[in-house]
This record gives sequence, C-alpha cells and structure tokens, in this order.
Amino acid sequence: MTQNQLDKKSEAWSALFSEPMSDLVKRYTASVFFDKRLWQADIEGSLAHAGMLAAQKIIGAQDLAAIEGGLTQIRNEIESGTFDWKLDLEDVHLNIEARLTQLVGDAGKRLHTGRSRNDQVATDVRLWLRGEIDLIGGLLVDLQKALVDIADKNVEVILPGFTHLQVAQPVSFGHHMLAYVEMFARDAERLLDVRRRLNRLPLGAAALAGTSYPLDRELVARTLGMDGVCQNSLDAVSDRDFAIEFTAAASLCMVHISRFSEELILWMSQNFSFIQIADRFTTGSSIMPQKKNPDVPELARGKTGRVVGHLMGLITLMKGQPLAYNKDNQEDKEPLFDTVDTLKDTLRIFAEMVGGITVKPDAMERAALKGYATATDLADYLVKKGLPFRDAHETVAHAVKAAISHQVDLSELPLAVLQQFNPSIEKDVYDVLSLRGSLNARNVLGGTAPAQVRAQVARHRARLG
Amino acid sequence: MTQNQLDKKSEAWSALFSEPMSDLVKRYTASVFFDKRLWQADIEGSLAHAGMLAAQKIIGAQDLAAIEGGLTQIRNEIESGTFDWKLDLEDVHLNIEARLTQLVGDAGKRLHTGRSRNDQVATDVRLWLRGEIDLIGGLLVDLQKALVDIADKNVEVILPGFTHLQVAQPVSFGHHMLAYVEMFARDAERLLDVRRRLNRLPLGAAALAGTSYPLDRELVARTLGMDGVCQNSLDAVSDRDFAIEFTAAASLCMVHISRFSEELILWMSQNFSFIQIADRFTTGSSIMPQKKNPDVPELARGKTGRVVGHLMGLITLMKGQPLAYNKDNQEDKEPLFDTVDTLKDTLRIFAEMVGGITVKPDAMERAALKGYATATDLADYLVKKGLPFRDAHETVAHAVKAAISHQVDLSELPLAVLQQFNPSIEKDVYDVLSLRGSLNARNVLGGTAPAQVRAQVARHRARLG
Amino acid sequence: MTQNQLDKKSEAWSALFSEPMSDLVKRYTASVFFDKRLWQADIEGSLAHAGMLAAQKIIGAQDLAAIEGGLTQIRNEIESGTFDWKLDLEDVHLNIEARLTQLVGDAGKRLHTGRSRNDQVATDVRLWLRGEIDLIGGLLVDLQKALVDIADKNVEVILPGFTHLQVAQPVSFGHHMLAYVEMFARDAERLLDVRRRLNRLPLGAAALAGTSYPLDRELVARTLGMDGVCQNSLDAVSDRDFAIEFTAAASLCMVHISRFSEELILWMSQNFSFIQIADRFTTGSSIMPQKKNPDVPELARGKTGRVVGHLMGLITLMKGQPLAYNKDNQEDKEPLFDTVDTLKDTLRIFAEMVGGITVKPDAMERAALKGYATATDLADYLVKKGLPFRDAHETVAHAVKAAISHQVDLSELPLAVLQQFNPSIEKDVYDVLSLRGSLNARNVLGGTAPAQVRAQVARHRARLG
Amino acid sequence: MTQNQLDKKSEAWSALFSEPMSDLVKRYTASVFFDKRLWQADIEGSLAHAGMLAAQKIIGAQDLAAIEGGLTQIRNEIESGTFDWKLDLEDVHLNIEARLTQLVGDAGKRLHTGRSRNDQVATDVRLWLRGEIDLIGGLLVDLQKALVDIADKNVEVILPGFTHLQVAQPVSFGHHMLAYVEMFARDAERLLDVRRRLNRLPLGAAALAGTSYPLDRELVARTLGMDGVCQNSLDAVSDRDFAIEFTAAASLCMVHISRFSEELILWMSQNFSFIQIADRFTTGSSIMPQKKNPDVPELARGKTGRVVGHLMGLITLMKGQPLAYNKDNQEDKEPLFDTVDTLKDTLRIFAEMVGGITVKPDAMERAALKGYATATDLADYLVKKGLPFRDAHETVAHAVKAAISHQVDLSELPLAVLQQFNPSIEKDVYDVLSLRGSLNARNVLGGTAPAQVRAQVARHRARLG
Repeated sequence: MTQNQLDKKSEAWSALFSEPMSDLVKRYTASVFFDKRLWQADIEGSLAHAGMLAAQKIIGAQDLAAIEGGLTQIRNEIESGTFDWKLDLEDVHLNIEARLTQLVGDAGKRLHTGRSRNDQVATDVRLWLRGEIDLIGGLLVDLQKALVDIADKNVEVILPGFTHLQVAQPVSFGHHMLAYVEMFARDAERLLDVRRRLNRLPLGAAALAGTSYPLDRELVARTLGMDGVCQNSLDAVSDRDFAIEFTAAASLCMVHISRFSEELILWMSQNFSFIQIADRFTTGSSIMPQKKNPDVPELARGKTGRVVGHLMGLITLMKGQPLAYNKDNQEDKEPLFDTVDTLKDTLRIFAEMVGGITVKPDAMERAALKGYATATDLADYLVKKGLPFRDAHETVAHAVKAAISHQVDLSELPLAVLQQFNPSIEKDVYDVLSLRGSLNARNVLGGTAPAQVRAQVARHRARLG
Repeated sequence: MTQNQLDKKSEAWSALFSEPMSDLVKRYTASVFFDKRLWQADIEGSLAHAGMLAAQKIIGAQDLAAIEGGLTQIRNEIESGTFDWKLDLEDVHLNIEARLTQLVGDAGKRLHTGRSRNDQVATDVRLWLRGEIDLIGGLLVDLQKALVDIADKNVEVILPGFTHLQVAQPVSFGHHMLAYVEMFARDAERLLDVRRRLNRLPLGAAALAGTSYPLDRELVARTLGMDGVCQNSLDAVSDRDFAIEFTAAASLCMVHISRFSEELILWMSQNFSFIQIADRFTTGSSIMPQKKNPDVPELARGKTGRVVGHLMGLITLMKGQPLAYNKDNQEDKEPLFDTVDTLKDTLRIFAEMVGGITVKPDAMERAALKGYATATDLADYLVKKGLPFRDAHETVAHAVKAAISHQVDLSELPLAVLQQFNPSIEKDVYDVLSLRGSLNARNVLGGTAPAQVRAQVARHRARLG
Repeated sequence: MTQNQLDKKSEAWSALFSEPMSDLVKRYTASVFFDKRLWQADIEGSLAHAGMLAAQKIIGAQDLAAIEGGLTQIRNEIESGTFDWKLDLEDVHLNIEARLTQLVGDAGKRLHTGRSRNDQVATDVRLWLRGEIDLIGGLLVDLQKALVDIADKNVEVILPGFTHLQVAQPVSFGHHMLAYVEMFARDAERLLDVRRRLNRLPLGAAALAGTSYPLDRELVARTLGMDGVCQNSLDAVSDRDFAIEFTAAASLCMVHISRFSEELILWMSQNFSFIQIADRFTTGSSIMPQKKNPDVPELARGKTGRVVGHLMGLITLMKGQPLAYNKDNQEDKEPLFDTVDTLKDTLRIFAEMVGGITVKPDAMERAALKGYATATDLADYLVKKGLPFRDAHETVAHAVKAAISHQVDLSELPLAVLQQFNPSIEKDVYDVLSLRGSLNARNVLGGTAPAQVRAQVARHRARLG
Repeated sequence: MTQNQLDKKSEAWSALFSEPMSDLVKRYTASVFFDKRLWQADIEGSLAHAGMLAAQKIIGAQDLAAIEGGLTQIRNEIESGTFDWKLDLEDVHLNIEARLTQLVGDAGKRLHTGRSRNDQVATDVRLWLRGEIDLIGGLLVDLQKALVDIADKNVEVILPGFTHLQVAQPVSFGHHMLAYVEMFARDAERLLDVRRRLNRLPLGAAALAGTSYPLDRELVARTLGMDGVCQNSLDAVSDRDFAIEFTAAASLCMVHISRFSEELILWMSQNFSFIQIADRFTTGSSIMPQKKNPDVPELARGKTGRVVGHLMGLITLMKGQPLAYNKDNQEDKEPLFDTVDTLKDTLRIFAEMVGGITVKPDAMERAALKGYATATDLADYLVKKGLPFRDAHETVAHAVKAAISHQVDLSELPLAVLQQFNPSIEKDVYDVLSLRGSLNARNVLGGTAPAQVRAQVARHRARLG
C-alpha cells in the first residue's frame, strides 16, 4: 500500500464511505480558500512536530530530512504562487500534507503521527494570531506616537471641552489628543494579556484525548516560542477563548476609533471648522462639486460595526457547544481574519491621517467663548472666598442667567454687576474668567493645565520609545 | 471641455482637491471589489433612469440611444470578463459611468443628470436584494417540500418527544418534521414583508434633497417593477432599514436551521442513532478511521453566528448616524452579501440533505419506551374517571415512582398494582399506556395523532404547490 | 385525595421527588417576580380555556361557574394588592392556579385539564405582547403627529442639509422632520406584521404533542380575538420567533430614535444652536453652573444599546435549542418586558419633547450659507445651458475653489468672474445661487421644495387621522 | 444663602432653569432606583475625598469631622432601611449629598469641592465592581474545587469522548471535568486582568478637565486601595472600557457555563443516562407526572444570552460617543449590575450542583463501546509495526467497515480476520483495542491516561489551595 490515500479523497474520505462528498457539500465545508492564509504557521508547526518526532525516535532521521526538504519546497511553491490548492483536499492542512506525500512519499505519511487536525488547526491559528498581535502592537505604537506629536504641538491651543456636547470648560487640544493615547495604550495592554493567554501549545492533544506516542510537548512549545502547553487535551482542541478575547479587545479598540472618528467628523463640519484633514484622506461627491468629505473617519466608524459583529458571531458560535471539537469551530477563522485585517488597516491609516490634520486654533478658541465655559471657575473663586460649593454653584447660575439676558460672556459683565451676585467678588475675578486663566488653573495631576499636559507628553514619549 | 473627468480621478477628485487620494486611502475606501456584484442592478437602474430622462426631454433621443448601446456593450464586457474594473474609480457606479463615457462620449456624461450616487446605490442594493429574496423564497419552498416529503413517509414512526431533553410524550416523526415546516413558512412570510417594504424607489432623491430636473419618479418605479417611491428624499438616501430587517429575518431563519441541526447531530450520535445522514453529507477524521461526522449540520449551526454577527454589525453601523448619507453606509454591503450567500447555500444544502436522511424507527421507538412517556395518558385516564387533573397528576407520580423502583415501564405494572394507586383503574388502561395509544389519542388540531399529521401534510402540499 | 397538591410544592414537586428544591435553586429558577406582570393575560387565557372546556363538556357548568368566580376574585385581589405571590409556586401560572384551588376546590384542579404550562405561557406572552404592540402603535402615531406638526410650522425654514456632516444642499426643516415620520411609519408597519404573526393561538398544544381531550382550539382563538391557531403543537410550545421579531422591530425603532437624538444633540450644541429644547427636558450639572444638557435624547441614544442587547440576548437564547420546550425559554421574558418598557417610555417622552422644541431659523440659515450649498444648483444651471453633467460638475469645482480663495460665497462672486468659468452664465444665475432658489427648485416628488413638503404634510395628516 | 440648594431641585435644577423637569422626564432620567446599590462605594469615595480635602487644607478639620459624622449616620440609615431615597434627587450621589447637608449644613455643601458627579460616578462604579470581581473570583475557586473533587473521584471512569458528538475515543470522566477547570481558571485569570486595569482612580478629573483646587489624587488612590490614578481627566470621565471588558470576560465565562450545561443536559437525557443531578436541582412538570427536568443547567444556558446581550448593549452604547461625558453613560449600570448578579448566582449554584451529580460509570462505559472508539489505537498499533500513519488509517477504515457489517466491535473480530487487513497484527492487538488499554495509552502531558489526570488533579489542588 504505497499510494497516497489523500489523492483518493475526491472519491471518498476512506474505505468507510460509500460515496464521495457531493459537490455542494465540498464547497460548503471546504475552508482551503480562506484558511490557506495559515500556511506559514502550518509549516512552522509541522517542522516543530517533525523535529520532536525524530528527537523522540518516533520517526527516523531520514524521514525528518525528507519532511524538512519537502516542506521547504512547498514553502517555495506557495510563495511563488505555483502551489496547486485543491478544494477536494478541504483545508490548508490536507493540501500541504498531500503535496508533501507526493514529494517525499512515506515520510510524508508519517508526519501526521500523534497529531490530529484538531490540535493542528488550534496550533496554527494561535501561531498566526500571535504574529498578528505583534504587528498590531506596532501599529498601536505608531498611532500613539502620531497622537503624542500632535498633542505636543498643540498644548497651548484652547478647545472648548464638551460634556453632553455642550460647552463645559476650556481644555488644551493637546490634552484632548492624549485622552486617545490613554485609550490606545489600554488596547495595547489588553492585547498583551490576550497574547499571554493564547501562547500555549495545543499540539499533542491529538484528536481530543492525547496520543499513545511518547511526544515531548514541551520541546515543541519551546521550538515554537510558546510559554507553555495546554494542560488538558479536551480543552486544547475545543477552546476558542483566544479568538473571542482577541475580537473583544479589537472591538474595544474600534470603539475608541469610532469615538475619535465622531469627533474628527464633527470638527471638520463647517459649524465647527476646528480642523482640516489633508485632501488625500477625503473624497468628493458625484453630484455636489463643493464637497470634501471625511471618508476615512466615517468608514472607520462604520467598520466598528463589522468588528463588533464578528465578536457577536464568535460568541454565538461557541455558545452551547458540547466538548470536544465540533465542525462549527471552522467558522472561527473568517471573522478572526477580517477582524485582524480591519484593525490593521484602520490603525495604519489613522496613524497617517493624524499627521495630516491641520488645527485651527482661532476657530476652537472662538467656540470656547460661546458657552460660559468659565462658570465653574467663578464658582471655585467664590469657594475660595469662603462660600460652600453648593451655594457658589447657585450664585453663578444667577450670574450666567444675567449674562445670557445681556448676551454677553461672564467676563464681559461689569464688576458692579458681578458684585450684585456676591459682594466678595473683586477685580481679580477677571483673571479666572479668561479661557487661559481657567486652563492654567486646572493644574492637578491629569488635568488640562499646559504644565500637566507637557508632563504627560514626556511620560508617553519615554514609554513609547 | 470634452475630456472625461472621471479619467482624471487618479490625480484628484476634482479641481477642488490639491492632491490625489493616498494609495492606502484608496484601498481603504474603495468598494469596487465587492460592490461590483451590483452591476446588473446598476445597469438596470441606469436604463430606467435614462429612459425617463428622455421621456421627460431632459436628454435627447440620441443620447438615450447612445446610453443604451453603451450599457449593452458594458453588460457584455462584464459578462465575458473583459471589463477592466479600476480601484481608482472607487465603486461599481463610477466604473460603469466612466466606461460609458469612454464609449459614447457626452451622452455618458449626461446619464448622471438629476441623480447622485447616494440615491443610485440605494436603488441598486434594493433591486439586487429584491432578486435575492425571490431566490431565497424558492429555496425555502424546496426545503419545506423536502420536509413535507419526509414527514409524509414517517407519519406513523414514533419518536420520543422531548421537553428539557427528557422523554416527555411519544410524537410522530412526521409531526416533528412539520414543526420545522412551520418555522420556514414563517421565514418565507417574513421575507415577503421585507420585500414589500424595500420595493420602493429611492432614485430621484439625488444627493439628499431631490433635484431641480422634472423627473418622473413614478415612471422609473414602474419600469423597475417597484411598488412605489420613497416619499422623502432625506430618508431615501439614508435609510438602511431594509438591510437590517432582511438580516434579522435571515438570522431567525438561521436560528431555525441551528435548532434543526442540533437535533440532526443529536439523532446521529450513537446514543440516539435515530437517523443516518447519507455519506455524501458527512466527512471523516484525519486521525480516527471510524468517524463519519455530520459536518453539514454542524457547520450550519456555526454559520448562525456569522449571520447574527452581520445583524449586530449593521445595527451598530446605523446607530446614532445623523442624516442624510454618511460614508459609514458603505459598510452595509459586505454583511448583506455574505448573509445572502450563507443563507442560500445553507437552504440549498439542507433541502438536499433532508432527502438523504435514513430514519431508524426501531431505535426511536425503543427510546420512547424509556422515560414513562405515557404517564400523562394515565393522568388523563384518571381525569376521565372523575379525578381532578391535579390529583390525577399526583397519583401518577406515585405510580411512576413504583415503576422506577421495579425498573419497569408503567405498562408493565400489573393491574393490581396500578389499582393500588386508584381503584377506578381497569383493564382498558393498557390501551392508553401504549405508545401508539398515546399517539392516536392526541387527535386535536395541531396534535401529533397521525390523522392530524396527515391533514397538515395535505395542507402544506396544497400551499406549496 | 382532596388536598391541594400545589400547597405541598415547598416540600417536593410531586411524589417522585425525594427532596425539595434548594432555596438557591428556587430563587434561580422562579419567575414569579417578573412574570406576574402577565396576570391579566393569564386570567384571560384561563377564562377562555375554561369556557371551551365547559362548551365541550370536558368540565361541568358548575365547575365553570366556580372557576369564573374564583378568577374574578383573584383579579380583584391582584388589582387591590392583596394577592399573596409566593416564590415557592415558581411562576404566575401556578400562583393563580393554587389560589384558585384554595378558593373553589376541585373545580380549580380541573382548570389545567388539556393544558400545560408550556402552551399556557406561550399564550400569555402572546396576549400580553399583542396589547403592548397596540399601545406602542398609538405612541408611534402620537410621535408622528408631533413631528408633522413641527414640520408643518417650519416648511419654509431653511436648514443646511448635510451629507458626511458637510454642508450639502439647503433643505426645509419641515422636510427634515418628515424624514423621521417616514421611519416611524415603517416601524408602525413592521409592528403590524409582527402582530399578525404572533396573533395565533398556541393553547391546545399542551406539553408538546397536543392533548387527548376533545378541545375546540378555534373557539378559544375566537374568544381571545386571535386570527388562528398554531398548526403544529411542537412548534407552538417551542416557538419564540415573535419575541425576536418584536425585539428586532423595536431595535430598528430605537436606531431611528438614536439618529434623531444625535441630531437634536448636535443642534443643541453651541456651535450649531439650531434649536432649543424646553428646560423641562434638560438637566444641569453638579459642578458647572452654566449647563443645560439634552439629557433625554442622550439617554434615548444610550437606551438603543439596551434594546439591541436584548435582541442579541434573545437570539443567543434560541440558537441551537432542540425541540420542544426547554427551560432556557423562561429567559425570554425579562428582555421582552424591558424592551416594551423602554420603547414605550422613549416614544412617549419624544412625542412630548418634540412639542417643546424651539426652532432658530436664523442660525440654521446662517449655517446654510457656509458650505457652498448651492454649488449643485450652479452645475444644474450649466446643464440646462447644454453642458454634460460631468463637465458642469468640474466647472463648478473650479468656481468653488475661486470662491474659497476669496472667502466669499458663490453668490457673492461677480458675474464677470463667474463667466470666466463658463461664458454661458448670465445674470439669472443669482436666482439659482440663493438658498431659497435652490430649495424651491427641488420640486420633485419627495423633494425638499416647500410645495412638496406641504403635500407630504397633508398626506401624513390624512393617514394619521 | 444658607438653604440647601438640592432641596429645591424639584422646582428647578438651578436659577438658570425656567421650569422644573417634567415628571415623565424625571422618571426617564433618574437612576436612583438602580444606582443606590452603589451607596457603599459612594460613601467610601466621599470619605477618602473629604479626608484629602482636609489634608490639603481645602476644607477645615471641623468640616471633615462633620462630614464623617454625617456619612456615618447616613450609612446607618441606609443599612437600617430608614433612608428616604428621592426620585427628585436623580441619583445616589445627590441623595446622599442632600441628606448630608440636611444633617451637617455648610460642611456638607463643601464635600463636592473639586469634584463632579462625572468623576464621582466613575470612581463609585470602579470601587463597586472591584469588590464584585473579588467575590466572583472566590466563586470561581469554589466551582473549580467542586470540579476537581468530582474529577478526583472519577479518574478511572471511562466516558466516550466525542468529537462532532460522534464517539471518538475513550476518555476519563475526571479528565473531562478538568477541561472545565481549565476554562474557569482562564476566566479567573481574565478577571484579574480586568481588575488591574479598572483599579485606577478617576476622582480629581472633576467634570472633564481637572480642577483648580490643589488635590492630592495619589493620596485618595492609596486610601481607596487603588493602584494608580487615571492620567488624563477627559479619559477618566468618559472611559467605560472596564464595563465592556468585564462584561466580555463574564460572557466568556457564561459561554463555558453554557457548554457545561449542554453536556449535563445531554448526559441527563434518557438516551445517555450518564449522570443524575440531585432532585433539589430539578423540577417537575405541570402536566407530565414522570418528569424531572434539569432546570438549572437549562436556565444557565439561557442566561448566557442575557449576559452576551449586555455586552452588545454596552458596546453599542459607547460606539461613536464624542468626549467627554455624555448622559448615555448612565446606561452602563443596569447591564453591569445584572451581569454581576447573573454570574454570581450561576457560579454559586453550579458549585453546589456539581457536588450533587451522581455518576453512572456503567452507562458511560456501555456507550463508549458503541462507536469503534479504539480504532485510532489500532492505527497507532500498525504505525508501531512500521506502517506510515496515513496507510494505517486507511487499513483501519477497512477493518471498521468489516466490523460494522458483522455488527461487532473491533475487539470482537477474530485475529484471523484482523490479520486479513494487515498480516503484522498479533495477539497483543487486543490489549490496545480495549477501552482501558486505549485510555492508559494516552499517557502524554495533558492526555487522558489516569496517571496524567491524577497529576493534573494534584496541580489544581495546589493552585486552588
């Protein structure tokens, strides 16, 4: 029996099957057209497995050499685009194994010793995702650096800080940018936690129960740079926590992107005109000749739904599945692949786009003058004069009411008028009623005073290298 | 100015733009590689629009002829695979329009009169989805017919009906199959409601406000077979309700598929062995030579997550979007396309697979004998003897307890023993304690008695044609 | 045996159980503290069931009279707050049945003849939800009327229409309000579809298989005002489509609310200042004395997540459930209840709030003058002079570029300058370049011209009564 | 001005408001009826804040003493149920502050100095959730211990291991239980990561920009046992990552619960009968006297949807929100509260229920004999005789086919028959074809061999203490 059993797969899975899979079923169940993306991880995992099989004398040295040679050739074929991917062979794993056996004969048939596709695919996905997490980590650093740069340049630029989209208090534009650095820093931290949990080796779990060959799983883990081995074979083949946890982390990152996008779109709107995004990040209209639309942040905001959808899909997938491996799990890949692609593309384009933002300080400052942004400062001023905070708050409400009825800012009310609200008000009140006075006053750790913002910029620069 | 402005798009959107879009942005924002699927709808919509423009004398008869000729050629080019789709031209609409202008010059430039991509894409997606809904409707009929066929053949086969996966009462296997017919019939009904709501014409809304040309929107609607026109231009271009409503209906259909799949998988399990699925719908294992796995229902159960994820993604997409059109909406297409593909593939394969199910009546009947499935019949028997139902229920609990301790079925308890629980029990009790007696007794509309099931089979056959 | 078995439930479910439920389990599995909300439906359903049992001679006339009397008393006890709801009795159904038996003895024990809690709860939820849908329908009418009123008063008010939140074209504020009327009209239509599908009677399905009593299910359906009976008993007790379909419709409605909220919040922001919401719909800040925050639309936007979450929860609940009834289904109620409450509260408050909106036409018109909103009109003007649309589009891009560099509106460019872009431009161009000229020009069905908007107002008034 | 401004809140928020909030709006926007649950955290946070204000000389020592006394009294009032929660005062924060001012006058009005409800609520929720995570951590330990106990007792019990719910290979029941220990251990690990990220102090961010008072935020953090302070005030008040991250972790934990539940329900089903759950965790039927239903795992499986729904709701809530605080965020609480309650109740009841499981080794072993579970062992046997794995796999498929046609197990085929498939097969083959032989053979790290399982039990016992 020297023929390649896998070559007969188009006829029947094995002797046990009385008929071949229907063509409709082949297309429905095959994964090769999307999972071939895992080929590098598959070869890397097979090399580590084969090396260990030889070290444990489960296969011979010649077999190992043949497998290594064959896999090297397959790697070349795939990279050069000459590899013939076959639908009949279902997935990346059988495609590579079948080709290996074509190339090196019986040695190829020995590669699958002590291994199942169940632990093989779990290993491949983990290896692949680990690499992607590292790439995403780098992109998050790039985006944070771009934000720190624009923050650094705009520490003194005054933006109306909003709550409820109502003018609240003046803030430094740089401070506002650093709020997003905090978010993306948490995203990076979260991805490292995911990485730590996924960097454990399923291989050796075989189909579900372990194997009767004397495998050295820890050797394979070391070869693949993993931190340890999955300690329970049933869990090893059925666990997709890492896919859900990664997609949850990606969803949070996209939520941050969506919030930033919302603000960029607002700020680009003519009624704000706080910023301009470089033309190369905008598009026009097929009908309205005057349009420059902030397509990139809009699309990114929209793509949040896509990633969140994948999270929901993956949770639904796993809900209620009995152990150990079920075919449902094949559906883990496309959402994971698309999440990785979407997140990488989005982070890359945002890092570029942030560098292309033109800030318009005058428009921001004009807007900050509209909504009595220093009212809190007046209340704080009164507290320092001895009023309890709650009373000061109410006093200022009266003052704002008067200013509104005169259509002036608080800082434009004459001292005599202000003193009607509280006689302790003196001339120095006008310092606290200015935007810059208000900004500088918030000199508490994490506050918007330029001194604080500069300290944060320095901290982030040190952290990001 | 006779050149084709769209030919210059790789340089800049219009004279207003100081630089071309960056390559990264082009790839990020372009939709042509997925929305080209809409080409038929796009051409159909353009023909209807051009015809109306000519009927309203907005363009001349020669222009119309040129446009019709050009679009016919483009149709041929796309069908034959020679059409050159360009990333620089962003989407299916500009690709076709640019090619049209290449082919027919100024007439092509006139096609977009009184139209915007905003109303154009909304029209295209509706036309395309309407066609897909009709195809899905057909597939739902096929699946229902397959289920009615298997029901018809197995009206008399007794299956243990479960609640809480505990044996409850005997039911007809045919009756059980018809439960799914009810579900898929509701799905079909729901899709018709979606179709009715989506079959309204956005075209004429232009960018967002309508247009200054004297369009005859109702003529276009009639030409395209639509039931009416969208009555508000802002709503027309911003509405994606139909995408969400369709995906919600598809999710429900997939939930039904997931429930059926769960049962098929259970029934295939050795501990049930109620059915066999034809080999061509199963696969083997790379390591375990004895395996025949029900891959198709497992994968379908998994794909439920995929469709539900798309629903979640689409809702997230639309949440909080201000009017009218935002670029976020471009993200409506891929989830919609994949939902349609997944649903169609799944329904098609299920219709085929149902025909390949082998029913094992003996195993089902053996299982029905295990869980005191006729206990309710004994209670009903006592009620007919005059006991209030609650008392009868408690009496039977005692009888079941005795049967369990003797490890026999209720029908195996001697009459004398049964009479200890209630003296009114007579010999005819054994009729109601048999599975078939129980089955036949449930002769109420919608019940499991064979007479009822046959009536339902007939009703469905009449309905499905 | 005349005692009330249900009174012993705290000891054990029935004689079959060797120990009572643990307290922890009782709390975990009991639903009475939320499902008691179904009490009216439960009594209504029981009365219909009992009436039919008597009509079919399954119970006697005295039993019916006793049941009716008992249920009337229970209704009074619940309404007056004296009914003693017991956790031990799990749910609303057993609480009412146990009390009925206390009150009327054996007649009470006969009520459950031919019925199970499985079909009973399905009936109760449908009855209850039908009533709520009718109430929601009324609230949707109220909200639409409020929107039509404000639209009617503001037909001539010019708002900058946005796409991509960039100024696009001038639109009538009334027209903009009517876009939301379209959305809520679709919501109402969708709820009627849900109502139609849910208004079918599960009662008579009993536990899962129908019953051996000669029930007249169609009589019960008629008594309860239902359109028909569920035709398959297994489907009848396991179907929760209506809960998912309702929640999907509610989610769409909340998405519309979230879009409207987003706009209200934007328009309230100082940089827009397009509207003022009455003080009674706003709140202040605990620290910033000047704040008036649009809490209601913000909270409504947030509550969208809540309803969408319930939809996702319900789909997850049903995914992969085998037939027939499983206890999982008890989890259908709280999301459904909260969805109904949230939707009703939100619609009610929005109908009120819309009446409390003060429109600021000057601010809107000023904003519409900012973004070259009439550029499309200039292009259309050139088309009418004979230019192909694409060329006209490019010509106007040049004109806008010039206007930007001079920091003026298109309508402020001298005729001579405009003629440099195209010599066919004449003095009448200034008519089309005005906001009002642009508005009036869009006189196509569904367009923003005041004549069209007035026609739509009339149509809606006729429709809404 | 010595009156309590908050006492006037039912009239108007402040002097700025011309009318009180409508009753409908009060009910819609008030959170006190759910957020009062945060009272302990609110008082704890206020005490830390007041202590710091005094340490920084922002308030006097007498004020601090008065505040401490007042808050102590409020604590007593709340604990004893005499505290008068008022809807007019919106939330837990204003209720407590208003009462404090009633009790201690101006000192109470000084408590809010340098603080806003925005940073106050963020602090309260974090403190509260930190405590709940610690409780959940304890419950996860309890559940793991219960699983380790049942694993330990059943190391030698043979269960048919399933893939695709088809019999795959024999596994130790103890091994199977330990798979869940791995899952819950990951859940615990994940919650610690969430805890680390949430245990940072927002207080001091004030409304959004920091404050003009010289707060010592790090002192407050230390007092509250937090690991650090939020470094950006805008992020501090707008961040709800921790709520989403916690709910994602809870969803994963519930997915694990749902998988375990699915298996318990299967195993309880008469066709499996692998286990019995103690009566106190089951319920009966209102109609079928013989039923004992596994309500607890069914309901837990259903509650997965609830928690997943909350996750989706929270993500939808945050998507696209501009900085800094928006009222939408008030909607973070109810999903978070319900997630915590659901998770705690479920873990507690599962830890109890696992101890009440009766294992039926005979039924499990009988089932393991059904599906040629040792076929892989035969293949491995042939590999050890020199066959390449792929050839061995095919050879065994032939052997299984023969065994099926004879309706016997592989171990029941005579040696001569086996040798027809491969002449190298010898008498010792029957050792590997036995269930126990197969089990013992999988003696690889993480495998199902009893020796391995015992080692894992020991590792878990050491880890869990």
